[in-house]
Amino acid sequence: MRWANIEYNGEQSYGIIEGDQVALVKGGLFDGGEGTGKTAPLADVKLLVPVTPKTFYAAGLNYVEHVLESAKSAGREPNIPDKPDIGYRANNALIAHNEAIIKPSDSTELFQYEGELVAIIGTQTKHISEEDALSCVFGYTIGNDVSERTWQRGDRTFWRGKNADTFKPMGPWIETDVDLDSLETTVRLNGRDVITFPTNNMLFGVARYISAMSRYLTLYPGDVIWMGTEGQSENMKPGDVCEVEITGIGVLSNPIVAEA
Amino acid sequence: MRWANIEYNGEQSYGIIEGDQVALVKGGLFDGGEGTGKTAPLADVKLLVPVTPKTFYAAGLNYVEHVLESAKSAGREPNIPDKPDIGYRANNALIAHNEAIIKPSDSTELFQYEGELVAIIGTQTKHISEEDALSCVFGYTIGNDVSERTWQRGDRTFWRGKNADTFKPMGPWIETDVDLDSLETTVRLNGRDVITFPTNNMLFGVARYISAMSRYLTLYPGDVIWMGTEGQSENMKPGDVCEVEITGIGVLSNPIVAEA
Repeated sequence: MRWANIEYNGEQSYGIIEGDQVALVKGGLFDGGEGTGKTAPLADVKLLVPVTPKTFYAAGLNYVEHVLESAKSAGREPNIPDKPDIGYRANNALIAHNEAIIKPSDSTELFQYEGELVAIIGTQTKHISEEDALSCVFGYTIGNDVSERTWQRGDRTFWRGKNADTFKPMGPWIETDVDLDSLETTVRLNGRDVITFPTNNMLFGVARYISAMSRYLTLYPGDVIWMGTEGQSENMKPGDVCEVEITGIGVLSNPIVAEA
Repeated sequence: MRWANIEYNGEQSYGIIEGDQVALVKGGLFDGGEGTGKTAPLADVKLLVPVTPKTFYAAGLNYVEHVLESAKSAGREPNIPDKPDIGYRANNALIAHNEAIIKPSDSTELFQYEGELVAIIGTQTKHISEEDALSCVFGYTIGNDVSERTWQRGDRTFWRGKNADTFKPMGPWIETDVDLDSLETTVRLNGRDVITFPTNNMLFGVARYISAMSRYLTLYPGDVIWMGTEGQSENMKPGDVCEVEITGIGVLSNPIVAEA
């Protein structure tokens, strides 16, 4: 089932996508999805950020090649994580499918995409085993962890490098029926494939992260966990369009625009 | 004016504290504070976390002695920040005044308080000058940035070390009339003063942080900025009570309890 957060005729609602139509539902994402009997053509709705999390989690370094390439670019020895230490991103930076990624006027050319799987929590959870962990996941969407590499390396935190406004496109919708092992992620820059990788080829998978996190913290409905990316990224510049596709979920597409 | 988020007779509302009474108001913290005509005795209400932020910001290293002492404890050279790089904490960890800080069963004895001033944003803000920055602040409260130092040093992020459930007491209420330069912070462990410092003796003050942040990110009503702490902390153990007092704001008090 494919859930979307939409604006239609000036009003926000959740809806379930059925072919080229969206069946509008009552209430929020976790209220059961009771239908209103109304539908809207998918082509006529504006897709919004699927959910604003209470806490915005991000795995960071979670694919081997990305760890190696990141270390090489930064001129330091690679350090493969030996346990799932979750990190954070910031809600101010979230934008929806098709919204513009604004490149700050003082950012460098090292302005890059990172295509990521995003798990969305559906059930309040603490102390869950790895075996049972996926039962608290509502569904999956796609994220683009936009990063300015000079700020990422030079600042004490990731505040500018990864969390400036518009740096966290997420969408286009939430897919609840997902076979993690069958997924493939492809990033396209202006229609050209720049990387394709098996989505689930992670150092620590979704279940391992959730189980480890839940030992110390409570996960809440709507919390999101961005699962990291693979390989090395290319630079994006104003005028470009960056797409992240994950098979079985969809395509997240965003244009890059220069800050005025 | 002193705003509190309260539970009274099983219902949540905001209220304005007047002496030993709370005047209940309609709506949220930023809705104007229209009175309901009802009051409740302050002694009979449960104080809740004053606000749950959209983004939870934290300055981290922002007082000279704390930077020096932290480096010394960790056995490395001190690195005084030369610019206000804001960091983050996580909403799952928030608890209210008088609620228990739960010490995880596998945490070490290096389980410590950090008494902090907290600025609460009242107005959506981007691109604000340092001169005008305090105009977007709604008021101030108090935070205790509880930290498990072995996890803080050994994990790749601050997820366990600073963001385990209950590690972020915040309260007891929000004071809107504050003269930053006159404030003094005192931390007490079981009634004994362990540190007193001028609250505003920061490397980068509230206005400087807000102005720098707003160059790249939008601040939203309810966002909180924890401003860091001074000096070196002592260990807390189950059975202890930790109080953080900031003159003119109030006292945030929390017992420490062992994880079951």
